[in-house]
Amino acid sequence: MTTPDNSPVLNNTTTSDTSAVKTESSGMWGGRFSEATDAFVAQFTASVQFDQRLYRQDIQGSIAHATMLASVGVLTDAERDDIIKGLSSIQADIESGRFEWRIDLEDVHMNIEHRLTNLIGITGKKLHTGRSRNDQVATDIRLYLRDEIDQLMQLLAKLERGILTLASQHTDTIMPGFTHLQTAQPVTFGHHLMAWFEMLLRDGERLIDLRRRVNRLPLGSAALAGTTYPINREYTAKLLGFEAVCENSLDAVSDRDFAIEFTSAAALIMMHLSRISEELVLWTSAQFRFVQIPDRFCTGSSIMPQKKNPDVPELIRGKSGRVYGDLMSLLTLMKGQPLAYNKDNQEDKEPLFDAIDTVRGSLLAFADMIPALVPNIEVMKEAALRGFSTATDLADYLVKKNIPFRDAHEIVGKAVALGVRENRDLSELTLAELQQFSSLIEQDVFAVLTLSGSVAARDHLGGTAPRQVKAAIERAAGRLEALLG
Amino acid sequence: MTTPDNSPVLNNTTTSDTSAVKTESSGMWGGRFSEATDAFVAQFTASVQFDQRLYRQDIQGSIAHATMLASVGVLTDAERDDIIKGLSSIQADIESGRFEWRIDLEDVHMNIEHRLTNLIGITGKKLHTGRSRNDQVATDIRLYLRDEIDQLMQLLAKLERGILTLASQHTDTIMPGFTHLQTAQPVTFGHHLMAWFEMLLRDGERLIDLRRRVNRLPLGSAALAGTTYPINREYTAKLLGFEAVCENSLDAVSDRDFAIEFTSAAALIMMHLSRISEELVLWTSAQFRFVQIPDRFCTGSSIMPQKKNPDVPELIRGKSGRVYGDLMSLLTLMKGQPLAYNKDNQEDKEPLFDAIDTVRGSLLAFADMIPALVPNIEVMKEAALRGFSTATDLADYLVKKNIPFRDAHEIVGKAVALGVRENRDLSELTLAELQQFSSLIEQDVFAVLTLSGSVAARDHLGGTAPRQVKAAIERAAGRLEALLG
Amino acid sequence: MTTPDNSPVLNNTTTSDTSAVKTESSGMWGGRFSEATDAFVAQFTASVQFDQRLYRQDIQGSIAHATMLASVGVLTDAERDDIIKGLSSIQADIESGRFEWRIDLEDVHMNIEHRLTNLIGITGKKLHTGRSRNDQVATDIRLYLRDEIDQLMQLLAKLERGILTLASQHTDTIMPGFTHLQTAQPVTFGHHLMAWFEMLLRDGERLIDLRRRVNRLPLGSAALAGTTYPINREYTAKLLGFEAVCENSLDAVSDRDFAIEFTSAAALIMMHLSRISEELVLWTSAQFRFVQIPDRFCTGSSIMPQKKNPDVPELIRGKSGRVYGDLMSLLTLMKGQPLAYNKDNQEDKEPLFDAIDTVRGSLLAFADMIPALVPNIEVMKEAALRGFSTATDLADYLVKKNIPFRDAHEIVGKAVALGVRENRDLSELTLAELQQFSSLIEQDVFAVLTLSGSVAARDHLGGTAPRQVKAAIERAAGRLEALLG
Amino acid sequence: MTTPDNSPVLNNTTTSDTSAVKTESSGMWGGRFSEATDAFVAQFTASVQFDQRLYRQDIQGSIAHATMLASVGVLTDAERDDIIKGLSSIQADIESGRFEWRIDLEDVHMNIEHRLTNLIGITGKKLHTGRSRNDQVATDIRLYLRDEIDQLMQLLAKLERGILTLASQHTDTIMPGFTHLQTAQPVTFGHHLMAWFEMLLRDGERLIDLRRRVNRLPLGSAALAGTTYPINREYTAKLLGFEAVCENSLDAVSDRDFAIEFTSAAALIMMHLSRISEELVLWTSAQFRFVQIPDRFCTGSSIMPQKKNPDVPELIRGKSGRVYGDLMSLLTLMKGQPLAYNKDNQEDKEPLFDAIDTVRGSLLAFADMIPALVPNIEVMKEAALRGFSTATDLADYLVKKNIPFRDAHEIVGKAVALGVRENRDLSELTLAELQQFSSLIEQDVFAVLTLSGSVAARDHLGGTAPRQVKAAIERAAGRLEALLG
Repeated sequence: MTTPDNSPVLNNTTTSDTSAVKTESSGMWGGRFSEATDAFVAQFTASVQFDQRLYRQDIQGSIAHATMLASVGVLTDAERDDIIKGLSSIQADIESGRFEWRIDLEDVHMNIEHRLTNLIGITGKKLHTGRSRNDQVATDIRLYLRDEIDQLMQLLAKLERGILTLASQHTDTIMPGFTHLQTAQPVTFGHHLMAWFEMLLRDGERLIDLRRRVNRLPLGSAALAGTTYPINREYTAKLLGFEAVCENSLDAVSDRDFAIEFTSAAALIMMHLSRISEELVLWTSAQFRFVQIPDRFCTGSSIMPQKKNPDVPELIRGKSGRVYGDLMSLLTLMKGQPLAYNKDNQEDKEPLFDAIDTVRGSLLAFADMIPALVPNIEVMKEAALRGFSTATDLADYLVKKNIPFRDAHEIVGKAVALGVRENRDLSELTLAELQQFSSLIEQDVFAVLTLSGSVAARDHLGGTAPRQVKAAIERAAGRLEALLG
Repeated sequence: MTTPDNSPVLNNTTTSDTSAVKTESSGMWGGRFSEATDAFVAQFTASVQFDQRLYRQDIQGSIAHATMLASVGVLTDAERDDIIKGLSSIQADIESGRFEWRIDLEDVHMNIEHRLTNLIGITGKKLHTGRSRNDQVATDIRLYLRDEIDQLMQLLAKLERGILTLASQHTDTIMPGFTHLQTAQPVTFGHHLMAWFEMLLRDGERLIDLRRRVNRLPLGSAALAGTTYPINREYTAKLLGFEAVCENSLDAVSDRDFAIEFTSAAALIMMHLSRISEELVLWTSAQFRFVQIPDRFCTGSSIMPQKKNPDVPELIRGKSGRVYGDLMSLLTLMKGQPLAYNKDNQEDKEPLFDAIDTVRGSLLAFADMIPALVPNIEVMKEAALRGFSTATDLADYLVKKNIPFRDAHEIVGKAVALGVRENRDLSELTLAELQQFSSLIEQDVFAVLTLSGSVAARDHLGGTAPRQVKAAIERAAGRLEALLG
Repeated sequence: MTTPDNSPVLNNTTTSDTSAVKTESSGMWGGRFSEATDAFVAQFTASVQFDQRLYRQDIQGSIAHATMLASVGVLTDAERDDIIKGLSSIQADIESGRFEWRIDLEDVHMNIEHRLTNLIGITGKKLHTGRSRNDQVATDIRLYLRDEIDQLMQLLAKLERGILTLASQHTDTIMPGFTHLQTAQPVTFGHHLMAWFEMLLRDGERLIDLRRRVNRLPLGSAALAGTTYPINREYTAKLLGFEAVCENSLDAVSDRDFAIEFTSAAALIMMHLSRISEELVLWTSAQFRFVQIPDRFCTGSSIMPQKKNPDVPELIRGKSGRVYGDLMSLLTLMKGQPLAYNKDNQEDKEPLFDAIDTVRGSLLAFADMIPALVPNIEVMKEAALRGFSTATDLADYLVKKNIPFRDAHEIVGKAVALGVRENRDLSELTLAELQQFSSLIEQDVFAVLTLSGSVAARDHLGGTAPRQVKAAIERAAGRLEALLG
Repeated sequence: MTTPDNSPVLNNTTTSDTSAVKTESSGMWGGRFSEATDAFVAQFTASVQFDQRLYRQDIQGSIAHATMLASVGVLTDAERDDIIKGLSSIQADIESGRFEWRIDLEDVHMNIEHRLTNLIGITGKKLHTGRSRNDQVATDIRLYLRDEIDQLMQLLAKLERGILTLASQHTDTIMPGFTHLQTAQPVTFGHHLMAWFEMLLRDGERLIDLRRRVNRLPLGSAALAGTTYPINREYTAKLLGFEAVCENSLDAVSDRDFAIEFTSAAALIMMHLSRISEELVLWTSAQFRFVQIPDRFCTGSSIMPQKKNPDVPELIRGKSGRVYGDLMSLLTLMKGQPLAYNKDNQEDKEPLFDAIDTVRGSLLAFADMIPALVPNIEVMKEAALRGFSTATDLADYLVKKNIPFRDAHEIVGKAVALGVRENRDLSELTLAELQQFSSLIEQDVFAVLTLSGSVAARDHLGGTAPRQVKAAIERAAGRLEALLG
């Protein structure tokens, strides 16, 4: 990282580094053309700058393709072996940084195939038999995305386990529950954390669901119509671990549903992380002080020496917009495209990669940070005591004495109005004062108005009672493992 | 439809029709307040204008809630029966247009409950025991969306069956297949139609997957923390046909993942319909003339007497943007919201309803229109004969004579260049001319260069060979029925 | 508002109310057609449900068109007068609710023209001479949007004046300024309010800028190529108050930039309102308590009697997503459309109208609410005293004693660390304690560490010093009036 | 470009190259902290990977800041000179690739300042006096964006001039004009090209308008509240060529309107380019063959030797989605952010840079390609002759014989129906046949039905008559130069 590469994000289109482009005539499709591709156009339309990250899947797919071609007699076993050996050596070169990527060879596919032919001669040229870049790239992306989904599932699970651990330590820790950011009713911190768990578990469910639609083989569709060679697509699918074969060649080369569906799920993950982040930013403010984030997840200010900023949650909140944008890019990209493959589709990769990388980094940061949160138990409890958080309990108390709920609500509203005027909580009013509003109120009301009484009383599946939260944590651990399969 | 209602889309906020608002003091939460709600604010924050469409689900949910409350002894059986009778009569009133919706009662829930209390007296006030509008509205939307998904699945299936019927009539009809909108290789019209089928089948898969996440019961979460009544949520779930109970009350009242996930799937459906529409618009142009759309799906021009415009596909192409926008609205809505319910969430309904309605209308139009398409078989065949669509076949022919694919590609490229210069197709070149480029070319090449030969040769799973397309149609019918369950 | 109209938002496509459609054969373009339009298709493709709100502009445009046609001799003066009289009577009918809108007449234009012909006979049929619905609708929308922009400018100005008034009352009211939602430095409430003013003033600038591009006349472009009548477009433009004439007919009928540009500006307005809303939601929480929103802008809870929820800001924060969605709809709509008019464009209206209405309602609510905010001056001051908000002042103090800023920052950081450990503010440390960190600190440091000293010291253009804020308010009033012109 | 950098787009978060991070304790804000920043967090929250492209503006801003500080006596002249000399040498190092960027120094600002202090000692630490990274980065981005806007204006102008040149060669070239992609009326190719010009001219207008809002100085706002130093912001503004000073410090550090407004304008540019691209893709299809794109802007197929694909327009059509996504990212980012600066804002840069780069590359490609288009004049004319493109002329002919337009429309509709049945154009019907539909039709009708007659008759401002198009081109050249100023 020593040079000012000004545009890591994109085709650095106005700089003069096209001089670096090796402009050999484009070996793979030049026959029909009377004029060389413009150097700028070559760079503008090339994808190797960003699709080289698919190299492993490209090689994996080519090895499976060659193996299948040999199995049906299109290649000899010796040709297959040469190809596999050549590709393996290319992979080693790439991974050790010795591979020279060339923009004039357009993409990861042609870079690798060109090198293969250099290495093993004429046999290298046979690898592309019965396939096209259209089905090849679709296969590469699906393989890549499948691998990434599996990684993301592990990161999600790590984060979820961290939440379960923290929640299990705080099944009895009381904090104010909010609606409209107004104090509503007391809840337990463990219960609040389990809401986060539920969000993330749904994210995992979605990834599992969509993975099935990612994990289908387009290879064998060739350019758009299939191929005249006697290929065996089921065999290729089996070699690559695909669950099924794409059933229609035209659809297979032009379908990018899987990328959009993944990015939608990624947008939901980021939305959840941004909601959690919002809470963390609130909770670490001087006004809330509900939790502390360890210093290592924070940074300071270049001008204000006292600052300790919750950078990680802020940044992740901001990054949600990024993945929303990726989703919108992909949806727009596919809108109104006629069949089959169009060059527009080359624009599928950067948004997808960006969504993957953003989710991955964010989950990694959260998986470390969340279990390290330190709640300020006393501060949270103190906050729960303010704001008439047990007003609903008083209403319920009245209902149990046979006052219709709507009337009870009205009575308590008046008691609260008194409390507001006098700046006292309901539990701080005297029995006599309370009885002004309803003669049915008796001494036992004060048990109902405590935080622990309030919380314990919500004692049903999904409620905030410590007993229920403990049971929920236990079920959750099992549900998570079941999902991971 | 006789008045110029200028803003059906929204809270008609600047007009003076707030005079129509019945400004009775807000019975359901007024106790604490010292100042009446401003009439404009009442209207601005009300939702009854658009959430009244949930009335059926609201009543259905209330009946289940009352039944459950009675089962655990919170209501007597007589109270339950009164409530059910009252609600049924309200439903009848609504459906016959006799119900008076009031903006000052804010939403569908309060309108119905208020009327119930008018009808059956004090017992009506007991219905809200153990629940809140927060879990009530979440339940209503889930019920509503579940019903709509089931309807959409039927419409999707109708459209897909129409495609299968048309495709089965055209397994041998040849048309040019395109990539980059350039003639690529001949395909069959049936094969092309089956690509549409595949897109839509995936849409159905997604709806089925997400329906499971819609079909969970939030009721019983009350405002955010659960309730102090001894409720039985599993029983309510069973009464309403929910597959599961939402496990965490804070999450349950604030979760709108299901709306976003549905709208994502809806955006993909619209994207597919817009791709098909794009093709129909192209195909009905004077330049393509591949198909005719019956007059009843078209309109004319107020100025150009000769016009017959493909309005339906154009409009549906345009409507894709609408659902993309709905998705973006919902994602933005939820970004950064702290737990639990916030008023922001009221904005979840209109985008969701709009997405549902747009998809429903579009599928309805397509389900009628697609089977009525009339392909111009001769025109399509003629087009396939142009554009060197069998060039790949020539390359494959050479490969089978042991020329590496890359070299064969180069040879054919040169033959095509000759054809372009002389404006002749490959099949119109003489053997001698072809042999200039490779001496391996022999008389049998001309069989390879025919359209039917080309198409029949792509004879593997997913290929365009008529034999394969027939088999694909048969499998597809079974896959569709399996999905519908 | 007495019927459960389930889908005010859209073409209520599955209901059976197509029975209400008067299916007279479509008089305006039926000549070429052999088959009647399907009733559902008629409804699905009709726009009169939502474009009827353009009736005033449609009539205004038609009157100008007729006047111009008479001026060039295409109509007689008598014909012109008949047309104007007929249109005026139609407008009166519409405004009194006596006009019958018909879906089979598709849109606002044909409904009005059809009625005109009923009223005045054959002359009514001459009105459409030299124009098309393509240029007519573009003209209508531009006129409508221009009117709405002018209204929105007034609402913006009202809100901005309200901010100025409130700010001028609080130029000396001190509150904590935040970065990262952490206490950063003390600022004045007036200064904070003036940040809101600046946002909104830019919004006004944008509306003014884009209004110029709205205010151009497409009429005269006819369907796409202009017309063969000797029209005088400059005259029509003058009659309608347009600043210029669209220079190219193909562009004029297909251009929707103005709708997108407006919706972009609307999205920015909503983004600003959502930022202000976020602050109001925070500030009204029990944790902040910086301001009170009058009861009339709040609502309560159906279950929690103590709640007073900041509904209006929450709802407006949520509504930002809505306008973002409208923008995305319109951008997607236009993506990839070939020239000239396509039916897709019919989908331009609802998002645009929704953006207009949402901004209008939101501004109306804010213009009432913001000046009515009641700051809790003591609470804000107390908050500013916490959180080491004058740490930067201490660093600046040291710099003025010739310590490089970076070193001063480090010294103060250590002093803050002591304060954090001992839970004391910097101003509560003793001189001796402070001198531990730098011997340059002397007694005069305590003046620097007061809130009023800190605030007053930021005494330059744009700074928070009361003197500067007063001057800024004065300038702002002038800038606002200058913008309004 | 020799290594497989897998993720040029983002923080490559899971790889192990954090080992490369120099983890010196963070010199600029470490004083308050008790724990080192986690290496992954350091990388995750760093921005130097992408903000280094601001180095030139960062240095430019620092030089102006130092100059101003010296002018008010905060720095000595000697200190100022040392700083300027140091910064200049750093710029030279960066531009020659000798500068070592360090992730542990977070961003471009700290990297440069740290190096400056290494170079010139303690004086380097004084540069940050009276500013903060919050106002510094806002200044850098504004300077950068201003420069880019100026470049984009030049590229836009180049493209527009190319269009004018091509249009001026084709003021008499006739092609079919389309609505609904159906042949509508004949237009000239020059007229069509001028529609493109109009779109792009509006884009230029928008850039000019928004540039004024970009070109305001935030520097001097410091962290959020201004600074205690006697700074002279007007002087800094003058040194940097800013037109105005941001009036409120809180707003100045948190405002990103300018980035959003630019990206909106960029989205419109891309929308226009995607519309033009759509037309080019259509026009180069075998079905249209209206234009040829020179080979150097096209690529071939790896499998189909005959293919010549319009890659550049396809890719640019696809890239529109990318910029739409950037816009949505930025809007989402800012939604609901409280004042003032939050870390979320770091996410402003990549979408903005991506939008800039995408527009720049796309304009560059178009500016080369458009003037090189070769229309197939005969093919276009032939197409115009089909499709009853002069039907409107026949209707107008009848109107001039005093038939009301609506009746004329009906008559012509019937004539077209005959033509459709018999596959003959209107001009190919006999006079007798035409007279069946109206006895007013006479021999002179055939002049009206020619293409050149039709085109020439639309002879008014904005019409397609060659005379008008020539005049429009002339005006356009002047309008463009006036805009460029």
